[in-house]
Amino acid sequence: MRGKLLIAQGGGPTAVINQSLVGAVLAGRERDAALPIYGARHGVKGIVNEDFVDLSREPAANLEIVAATPSSALGSTRDKPDLKYCQDIFRSLKAHNIGTFLYIGGNDSSDTVRIVSEEAQNAGYPLRAIHVPKTIDNDLMENDHTPGFPSAAKFVACAFAGAELDNASLPGVYVGVVMGRHAGFLTAAAAALRDSSDDGPHLIYLPERVFDTKKFLSEVRTVYARLGRCVVAVSEGIHDAKGEAIATKLAKEIERDAHGNVQLSGTGALADTLTEEIKQKLKIKRVRGDTFGYLQRSFLGVVSDVDQHEAREAGKQAVRFAFEENRDGSVTINRAPGKNYSVTYALGALEKIGGKTRIMPDSFIAGSGSDITPAFLDYLRPLLGSNIPPKARLKAPKVAKVLAS
Amino acid sequence: MRGKLLIAQGGGPTAVINQSLVGAVLAGRERDAALPIYGARHGVKGIVNEDFVDLSREPAANLEIVAATPSSALGSTRDKPDLKYCQDIFRSLKAHNIGTFLYIGGNDSSDTVRIVSEEAQNAGYPLRAIHVPKTIDNDLMENDHTPGFPSAAKFVACAFAGAELDNASLPGVYVGVVMGRHAGFLTAAAAALRDSSDDGPHLIYLPERVFDTKKFLSEVRTVYARLGRCVVAVSEGIHDAKGEAIATKLAKEIERDAHGNVQLSGTGALADTLTEEIKQKLKIKRVRGDTFGYLQRSFLGVVSDVDQHEAREAGKQAVRFAFEENRDGSVTINRAPGKNYSVTYALGALEKIGGKTRIMPDSFIAGSGSDITPAFLDYLRPLLGSNIPPKARLKAPKVAKVLAS
Repeated sequence: MRGKLLIAQGGGPTAVINQSLVGAVLAGRERDAALPIYGARHGVKGIVNEDFVDLSREPAANLEIVAATPSSALGSTRDKPDLKYCQDIFRSLKAHNIGTFLYIGGNDSSDTVRIVSEEAQNAGYPLRAIHVPKTIDNDLMENDHTPGFPSAAKFVACAFAGAELDNASLPGVYVGVVMGRHAGFLTAAAAALRDSSDDGPHLIYLPERVFDTKKFLSEVRTVYARLGRCVVAVSEGIHDAKGEAIATKLAKEIERDAHGNVQLSGTGALADTLTEEIKQKLKIKRVRGDTFGYLQRSFLGVVSDVDQHEAREAGKQAVRFAFEENRDGSVTINRAPGKNYSVTYALGALEKIGGKTRIMPDSFIAGSGSDITPAFLDYLRPLLGSNIPPKARLKAPKVAKVLAS
Repeated sequence: MRGKLLIAQGGGPTAVINQSLVGAVLAGRERDAALPIYGARHGVKGIVNEDFVDLSREPAANLEIVAATPSSALGSTRDKPDLKYCQDIFRSLKAHNIGTFLYIGGNDSSDTVRIVSEEAQNAGYPLRAIHVPKTIDNDLMENDHTPGFPSAAKFVACAFAGAELDNASLPGVYVGVVMGRHAGFLTAAAAALRDSSDDGPHLIYLPERVFDTKKFLSEVRTVYARLGRCVVAVSEGIHDAKGEAIATKLAKEIERDAHGNVQLSGTGALADTLTEEIKQKLKIKRVRGDTFGYLQRSFLGVVSDVDQHEAREAGKQAVRFAFEENRDGSVTINRAPGKNYSVTYALGALEKIGGKTRIMPDSFIAGSGSDITPAFLDYLRPLLGSNIPPKARLKAPKVAKVLAS
């Protein structure tokens, strides 16, 4: 008897994380119609608290709507188990006769699977533990990309396409701050829908490069002088040469230079500080900043169909690996060689993925350090899927002036 | 000879403002294939500067893509003409033989049409001037609703549906700040996709009601005690009993635009301050705030098909009124009586609309002052159109505890 199948979700939600959940449930049912399938509420926390739901009894029709629903349907957690926590997990798993554990999450969740896997072996507890990849940051080692990123990238691309058109209509400087503490993939996606050389974002600042405020201001000034406007994409993780976050650093300087308190806490701080810096130093009046915040990871209805498909498949493959391979691991997604886009799924080693962070390769970052390369666009394009909204500018010719001719 | 048709766009962009532009161009072409049609770049500013494009020569295929593109394709402006400005406008209109002027915009743009119309009559300049409604704020008098609002409402509804699912996954307090200086329609749309009584937003704060920080904190505490989490929708325009905006009380620096309006958008200050207040006073650890900013008015691809249709029709109707009615005015949209949703278009009086602001009727606001009523949902539902993404939570039954039974 191999025991029940248990599925849980960890870390930040994505638009397609439930596709992986549903993929795993359906693959489990398909393999063995009598297989009991549990879901843990709020990740490993739910295991310890025996907070389980019986996914075997989830109606199939509702499962398909859940699959299309953003954010973790089982609930999530940021908890990361230590030895004591793991012992509580095993106690619960044993009591409920769980033989297979699938954890859908990012690099922290992957590391949780590694710890649980190791401690289970040490404790002689017979458990098959598989990590299913998910993160909008796209920062998992051993993967070409990760489920959740393509949909978040589509959100960021559509947001910047709109912000660019807005900025062209009412010119000024616009700064959009995008998630991604250490990896710039999501910020880089801001460039995905640029159509002409004048289209913004005109400048892109990634955590893979040191952020220099003087260089930043000089580059904004140059674009503004050329176009009378400037759209900027900034990663929330930008930092100086010493690794200090720019939000903290700039706020200190502004406080020294000018007036009063600058609030550091809260998610709008970096955008507000950068726009304030541009207003003060470049004397540009119309400067606006947005922080994309939680919208970019959970917005209802903006999703890549390629991402949906791959997230579903990652859940299915996890069940296959659990039943067919005699080892724990992490499902990886890599691009198959060839001209047309396709991917292969494999079972990667947890110790190569858990807790590690992949960043943008140099080939994706322009020499200027403030833009991306065509190679990144080639990489991103197939991930965004088939349903990208069209957009166009007027082509009508200018009319000759009569009065001021 | 009635002269050329001139179209311009003013004020903040929307997702469907180009539908009205294209509707007007196509209606003009249909009425008279030889009618010269100009577009002014950046609203009235483009008229004064003779910055015209020849829309008669815009390829029809491109027009249809432009119609589906968010933000003002002709460019916009915040300029509001005085007498001298009007005289410059007439000088340019005369030089280019313009007989009909359509201005697509909100209540400020409507007031611009009123001023231009009056000054044209005083100056004996033969001009037909029609205002075409557009505003995500939904605050035009004499209208049931205005083009642009339904698509922005759909964005806000989908954003809060996602934020609610995110918050249910990783519980805490979430505050989302929505545009709408004086009218709360767009903030109220945050409630559109609630499915159950536990679904957020659990609290909604509108500019139609005085914002009391103590009441706010008390209500957040109550929801948090009941659900262990709380999702809050807040209008950027919330103000105290004296009418002072909560945002300006907190803002480090107040920037005013050309109309004397305080800048509320493009800064995260209100969300940051409210979340800080909750953290400090209620001692809740996980508190997050987002300011939806420019995304809610220009995001590429989130659009109501009803809104697209009506915006197109408003542009067409403006041409009809210009050619068939012997007076200036503003195209209005009102709901036809009857069980099924349909609208009628009429030519309203500029002096009843220009510069005036419609706010939420009391029947749309709950007695608590921090929620909306079912009547508002009935009002909003048909506007959101047919393409609302589905969502569902798991229905799987809980599993009985074994250890802690």
